Amino acid sequence: MISIGLLGAGRIGQIHGRNIAQSPRARLVAIADPMPDGARSLSEATGAPVRTPDEILADPSIDAILIGTPTDTHADYIDKAAKSGKAVFCEKPVDLNSARIRKTLERVEKAGIPLMIGFNRRFDPNFAALQRRLADGTAGNVELVTILSRDPGPPPVSYIERSGGLFRDMMIHDFDMARFLLGEDAVEVFALGSALVDPAIGKAGDVDTAAVVLKTASGKICQISNSRRATYGYDQRIEVHGSKGLLSAGNVHETTVTFAGERGISADPVQNFFLERYAAAYRHEIDAFIDALVTGRKPKPDGVDGLKAQMMADAATKSRETGKPVKIG
Amino acid sequence: MISIGLLGAGRIGQIHGRNIAQSPRARLVAIADPMPDGARSLSEATGAPVRTPDEILADPSIDAILIGTPTDTHADYIDKAAKSGKAVFCEKPVDLNSARIRKTLERVEKAGIPLMIGFNRRFDPNFAALQRRLADGTAGNVELVTILSRDPGPPPVSYIERSGGLFRDMMIHDFDMARFLLGEDAVEVFALGSALVDPAIGKAGDVDTAAVVLKTASGKICQISNSRRATYGYDQRIEVHGSKGLLSAGNVHETTVTFAGERGISADPVQNFFLERYAAAYRHEIDAFIDALVTGRKPKPDGVDGLKAQMMADAATKSRETGKPVKIG
Amino acid sequence: MISIGLLGAGRIGQIHGRNIAQSPRARLVAIADPMPDGARSLSEATGAPVRTPDEILADPSIDAILIGTPTDTHADYIDKAAKSGKAVFCEKPVDLNSARIRKTLERVEKAGIPLMIGFNRRFDPNFAALQRRLADGTAGNVELVTILSRDPGPPPVSYIERSGGLFRDMMIHDFDMARFLLGEDAVEVFALGSALVDPAIGKAGDVDTAAVVLKTASGKICQISNSRRATYGYDQRIEVHGSKGLLSAGNVHETTVTFAGERGISADPVQNFFLERYAAAYRHEIDAFIDALVTGRKPKPDGVDGLKAQMMADAATKSRETGKPVKIG
Amino acid sequence: MISIGLLGAGRIGQIHGRNIAQSPRARLVAIADPMPDGARSLSEATGAPVRTPDEILADPSIDAILIGTPTDTHADYIDKAAKSGKAVFCEKPVDLNSARIRKTLERVEKAGIPLMIGFNRRFDPNFAALQRRLADGTAGNVELVTILSRDPGPPPVSYIERSGGLFRDMMIHDFDMARFLLGEDAVEVFALGSALVDPAIGKAGDVDTAAVVLKTASGKICQISNSRRATYGYDQRIEVHGSKGLLSAGNVHETTVTFAGERGISADPVQNFFLERYAAAYRHEIDAFIDALVTGRKPKPDGVDGLKAQMMADAATKSRETGKPVKIG
Repeated sequence: MISIGLLGAGRIGQIHGRNIAQSPRARLVAIADPMPDGARSLSEATGAPVRTPDEILADPSIDAILIGTPTDTHADYIDKAAKSGKAVFCEKPVDLNSARIRKTLERVEKAGIPLMIGFNRRFDPNFAALQRRLADGTAGNVELVTILSRDPGPPPVSYIERSGGLFRDMMIHDFDMARFLLGEDAVEVFALGSALVDPAIGKAGDVDTAAVVLKTASGKICQISNSRRATYGYDQRIEVHGSKGLLSAGNVHETTVTFAGERGISADPVQNFFLERYAAAYRHEIDAFIDALVTGRKPKPDGVDGLKAQMMADAATKSRETGKPVKIG
Repeated sequence: MISIGLLGAGRIGQIHGRNIAQSPRARLVAIADPMPDGARSLSEATGAPVRTPDEILADPSIDAILIGTPTDTHADYIDKAAKSGKAVFCEKPVDLNSARIRKTLERVEKAGIPLMIGFNRRFDPNFAALQRRLADGTAGNVELVTILSRDPGPPPVSYIERSGGLFRDMMIHDFDMARFLLGEDAVEVFALGSALVDPAIGKAGDVDTAAVVLKTASGKICQISNSRRATYGYDQRIEVHGSKGLLSAGNVHETTVTFAGERGISADPVQNFFLERYAAAYRHEIDAFIDALVTGRKPKPDGVDGLKAQMMADAATKSRETGKPVKIG
Repeated sequence: MISIGLLGAGRIGQIHGRNIAQSPRARLVAIADPMPDGARSLSEATGAPVRTPDEILADPSIDAILIGTPTDTHADYIDKAAKSGKAVFCEKPVDLNSARIRKTLERVEKAGIPLMIGFNRRFDPNFAALQRRLADGTAGNVELVTILSRDPGPPPVSYIERSGGLFRDMMIHDFDMARFLLGEDAVEVFALGSALVDPAIGKAGDVDTAAVVLKTASGKICQISNSRRATYGYDQRIEVHGSKGLLSAGNVHETTVTFAGERGISADPVQNFFLERYAAAYRHEIDAFIDALVTGRKPKPDGVDGLKAQMMADAATKSRETGKPVKIG
Repeated sequence: MISIGLLGAGRIGQIHGRNIAQSPRARLVAIADPMPDGARSLSEATGAPVRTPDEILADPSIDAILIGTPTDTHADYIDKAAKSGKAVFCEKPVDLNSARIRKTLERVEKAGIPLMIGFNRRFDPNFAALQRRLADGTAGNVELVTILSRDPGPPPVSYIERSGGLFRDMMIHDFDMARFLLGEDAVEVFALGSALVDPAIGKAGDVDTAAVVLKTASGKICQISNSRRATYGYDQRIEVHGSKGLLSAGNVHETTVTFAGERGISADPVQNFFLERYAAAYRHEIDAFIDALVTGRKPKPDGVDGLKAQMMADAATKSRETGKPVKIG
């Protein structure tokens, strides 16, 4: 049984905490959060006591920590966990600054602790199944990847201002997905962006609508598009065009119900909320983390995956700002 | 908190037991099963102790029992629960004999205990959503209902011999669904059946392929078809043609992945196993049972629903045997 | 080049006339219709002269006639064509009376003229493709056929009164389709029907909503349902459940356009009008007729197919009226 | 009746010639082609005589010419038609050289002749329906357009060498579609391309796999991707993400038949050949040309549309070669 302490009992921490508590191979042994309400409700639901982060990090009986705190605390907590020899599952990103990420990854490396980054979409049953079929050769060689991600609605401008921008905050998931599907690193990126959804986002220096093209060293191409607002729900689709055919993974609908009436045929909407859309992905990624700790295998995606996605986001941000293609790394 | 004792820790009891254990409003407090392995594994997973059925029925601290034992024990256990004043959730059917069901329902009525019958499909998110839209008038007046149910493969002939026949064992779910969707009782049924999948099923006096038409007093029509074998998985579809349009609920696929290649476009198969296909339905029906006990509302579907579906199955069986339409009830 | 004279330049005659005129292997050489407008407009479009039916039947240079006149004239025209040795394409049905059909088929047989009946749906590209895949063994042995046909709206009651009833006027197409797909004749039919769409149809002694089950000698089962009104268009679907899988053919939509918005995902409606839905089928059936005449092969579906569908419709009508299953033939 | 002479009776000329011949508002009055076989077969099918291009251009009784000859002859023929005052329908492109196009357009302008360019996809029923719904405001303001075009297989390298490259030969259709959907001109393009399908295409200096991003002055974004080889057929899809929702138009399948078997659910492949896929589009564009001549309205898309798509292709070609974004126009 793996003993796991949770740092951060907000929206995503609540999900992870419950998933840990329900695992037959792990126990949630402590919860820390500066907001007492979140910590308490999760404590009641799981039986795990509320403690401070320092207590958790200092407790030698705790094998691993899950970091679901605000982004600017991630690297510090990883550093501390490295010092105390604990395995870490950290929500993306490690940091908004690539140099800072590198420094932390060196410490992780030196300490030899397992570090897994929460790119949950790799664990979505649909995307994971697509990737497995890609890996087994169904579609032949990958040539052209298309990733479409659209959120139901933009976050508050106050959040956007501290977010690092759309490419680091939202498209970073797609950059990781691009690496997951391309099977090699992109070497160059060109990005376009506009503030079409809300001019206030533009005033804050960010964009809400963006398209990116990437190229790998061997010439594979990937296009990604993002919008901060889709009236029809949480739109998350990928397709991979390969030498043997096209693999696609579409949206998940609320139900299979359709209605045919005077005004045409209508299907139930797609799942609208990322916690619902990716509920299974969250379960599976925690299970993968626990599995890595139990078996001693290196968890995946790891710190390097986190760093590389961040570097792609940095390059895309720079490309959008300069209007020029930017080399990655 | 509702205290529930489980009678029967087989395939379906394991599901129900775990769902009870995870409910915030109920506790699984005891497990009984003649097969020690099933009871023990569920006990380990949930912490509920293994006891005998008599101990469970006699324990005044237990509010309700869930009956997931073999069919021929259902009515007896309900009778005993009625005597001891416990609420009952009973897997369908109450009994294969309608007269026996009636007698038990009288005892339930006299004792005033809540009785819910496990017609799980009413709680499938897809079928439940369809029925809600029917109820809110989306499709207008119901005119023509089509229900298609096909199992991945037939059960062993030894099971079929004791099953009461396809209409009572398999199509009974569809009869309940017909009532759920028609909004009124069928008054007449005509049934055709053949043993096309396996001649041994025919030798055992049963059929493996069947079609039924039903009519209600007001003239609504329902057609049901069953096959014991679908190569492509567990096929469960309904459509309701009404005065304002057509509501349909289709199959649930493993994933949203499709592959387009030289040989056409292919989708992932439909979910193949009823415990997987109806996993959410099982959760929701247990939640509905607990909700009824907590709020004091009568649970639904109840014993009368169980009886009426059984009477439809009896009539269909007789129709198939005599080659004539049969009045119901 | 096959010379074809057209009897009847109404809605369906206009279609056939134009399709003949565009064939590279046939010429439309004469048009007859008591209504001068229809004949004239088709004559202008195709260049074929307007003549009387008797002139057409008497003209030895005309190889074949296409009969698209009112039903009660079909048998007489076939008889006359048999006398004058002309090939015949006749819109379904040959007659509403099976005895009359038999008499005409005897004359056709004796005269040795080719006779093709216009069951256009066999030539629909979708249904034809399904049947070809059935014939090549894709789905294994046929076990259970489901045919759903729903019209956008009912014809005038005045039409219904002379139509022979829903089973002979509308479901006859589905009876022919059942034979096309089952690969053997049905031996028994049970029919239910109601007037739910329009009570006036019930007062006229007919039904507007109906379901039928059929069984063949070897135990194959077919279910058919009809409604005279579908708010969402012309609904024409078939599925064949076989020992190796399920073949389905769905509706044809106006376009592939879908819209995802706040109220869900909606597709363009299905094609609403039978002349549009079956435009390709009409072309292909005329081509098959011409092909049969050019190659000397017997055209299909022939008079016996017409008779057998009529006998099924008769039996279904009787079943609906008596409330009992009826043997066919 | 509009009298039209056809220059070029190759693959596409045969289609246009037959469509003209079947129009009730136009006559095909002459056919010219250096290859006698093509001209003769079309002449036999339509009755139009074979003549030389000069005879056609000199004949004052001919109202319009349709140019379906090799690309390098287009501009000359348009110039000659302008001199003789004939309307012109010209297959895309007017020329591979934008300067040459400009010169010809000046002559067209001066002569005042109607000129329509054969961007057939605007007339595809699916894409046309999507654009109409865009124009009526269904999707709100356009923000993000995605166009995916993939050919079943690459043309011979000998063709590619003379084609002007993928962006001018293949993606030009998508550039026109982008303008059709964006409702304003793109001001900048960035293009990536690789030779992944066939290295010989790369040796010839071209690419077979490409992705482009475009931006308009108001910030709308469009992404286009092309591949010269799709194992699954002719893949032509568009989607428009707007402030009110997402409009999509998908591929056209051969039939609606699906098969569900042990290996999943498979649909019939998409239409594989552009002449089949766009058969309706070819009919509708000729009809639009004839309609413009009959009504005296300016035909659309016109020479300027042709020029602008060509300028986009030029800019994309330059972007791909220089690795930098390129301003358009």
